[in-house]
Amino acid sequence: MARFADFETIAVLGTGVLGSQIVMQAAWHGKQVHAYDAFPEALEGLGARWDWIREGYREDLPDYTPERFDEALARIHPTTDLTEAVGDADLVIEAVPERLELKQEVWRQVGALVPEKALLATNTSSLRPSLFAEDTGHPERFVTLHYANRIWKQNIAEIMTTGASSEEALAGAERFAQQTGMEPVIAHKEVPGYVYNSMLGPLLWSAVELYMSGVSTPEAIDRAWRTGWNTHRGPFQVMDTIGFRTVVAILRSKTDRPALLEFADLLQEQIDRGHTGLADGQGFHRYDADGRRLGPVETWTLRA
Amino acid sequence: MARFADFETIAVLGTGVLGSQIVMQAAWHGKQVHAYDAFPEALEGLGARWDWIREGYREDLPDYTPERFDEALARIHPTTDLTEAVGDADLVIEAVPERLELKQEVWRQVGALVPEKALLATNTSSLRPSLFAEDTGHPERFVTLHYANRIWKQNIAEIMTTGASSEEALAGAERFAQQTGMEPVIAHKEVPGYVYNSMLGPLLWSAVELYMSGVSTPEAIDRAWRTGWNTHRGPFQVMDTIGFRTVVAILRSKTDRPALLEFADLLQEQIDRGHTGLADGQGFHRYDADGRRLGPVETWTLRA
Repeated sequence: MARFADFETIAVLGTGVLGSQIVMQAAWHGKQVHAYDAFPEALEGLGARWDWIREGYREDLPDYTPERFDEALARIHPTTDLTEAVGDADLVIEAVPERLELKQEVWRQVGALVPEKALLATNTSSLRPSLFAEDTGHPERFVTLHYANRIWKQNIAEIMTTGASSEEALAGAERFAQQTGMEPVIAHKEVPGYVYNSMLGPLLWSAVELYMSGVSTPEAIDRAWRTGWNTHRGPFQVMDTIGFRTVVAILRSKTDRPALLEFADLLQEQIDRGHTGLADGQGFHRYDADGRRLGPVETWTLRA
Repeated sequence: MARFADFETIAVLGTGVLGSQIVMQAAWHGKQVHAYDAFPEALEGLGARWDWIREGYREDLPDYTPERFDEALARIHPTTDLTEAVGDADLVIEAVPERLELKQEVWRQVGALVPEKALLATNTSSLRPSLFAEDTGHPERFVTLHYANRIWKQNIAEIMTTGASSEEALAGAERFAQQTGMEPVIAHKEVPGYVYNSMLGPLLWSAVELYMSGVSTPEAIDRAWRTGWNTHRGPFQVMDTIGFRTVVAILRSKTDRPALLEFADLLQEQIDRGHTGLADGQGFHRYDADGRRLGPVETWTLRA
């Protein structure tokens, strides 16, 4: 039997927005899941997270039943004890905040505690995983396993090598993704942004350049993309969903193109006014409480 | 009443793949349409084009009836006489082959024949319209009006200024688009690729870079895009639809990035073997006779 094929017990480290979704997605698919967080308050807040996720499952998954969700909840074991979380894990998925020193420290601890059988994975989205692969102590069985928000619906799982990851570790992560309702996509070289965001970025920034150079408005650019691609959203709607804070952080850290940095400043002005995107009902578009697009925001007129 | 509001009689110059679709889309929406072609053979081939377009309307338009299509056909007047075509036109849409000298020559002739009321438009996709705006003799009422293939379904109409186009000419083109079932998007500055292709290009080329650098395969990259964007096709499927010949032509004329030029050479090898994309059933994917994707083509394995 292949190594990294049998995933009964999973440990998820960090129970934030995405960590809690990773926990539930695994539990929903029958896994026993240790939900570890260093902060007891985080674990105490899990009830509200389950309520939100339950609502998403109920809306989006045809096979949702309250009973099945309750059964999944019963397979989740919150803990602040790292040894308890990872000591018998077949797979450890780390989803702690995106600070390199923190990731390095967590993985140094985890690496010393995990059993030989454990596959190790990080959900990092903005840090190169090779920067902390050695800290795990087991770089050959360490991969990235990257999820998108609302993972039960946007069910892409991007698996990326650090350069030191073994083929069997990558194959193991692919199997786990398939076992838990995800669509795995493997990146065989380490690239910032994995596969999906490596394409999404150029699309978004080309849309921004069109706006900043006075060719068209966010409303019309989104409409062009929706009509031309025959899809449900355009690039500025995507930025509304990502949230202006994250878009600004990405732009300021990754680009030196003046038009894009000027655009980041425009977004910052909106953030300062409390308009950060879909989450608060206003970004480039206005949204109702259910996230339905109501119409464009007149702030974003054609630039001279 | 606004100028360029009343479009009763349209002239379409050139009855090729897209020209014939522009003719039918206008006729379907009640316009009288002069379908001009310099070549009698082209007009003689129109019957086959109507059959193909009829099939598309029948499949894609809920309001299709054979009678309505026949009525539209009765509003189409094929001619090889340019004076007859444009002499009383409210709108002239030029869709002749993409050669600058040809466009200049056609517009010099047309400009001398059109009535004062006529709005003038080119459907050029690869030439800057400002390069032949002066040839029309009426640059202030000359705009671009750019359609995508299968215009009845992919119903984007991109309207672009040449820099000399008047606001009322742009607004007139927008009205015509709305009157004929199109979704108008205005580009207020001249940019190669209009709005839609200015975004599509960066997306496609980033996908190509991922493939050429050995990160992933076309199959997986397409899957990542479909899953992440929750849509029906990925970038390599789009290149299959555009056709390898066109992709090669675009790459060789617009880029000097070595990976992209090397990719163009790979496409050329496939073209030489008779595999040019969706049209002949094989590109990055295999397709059945109805254009349904059957599976990936094994040629396109992970690059070292």
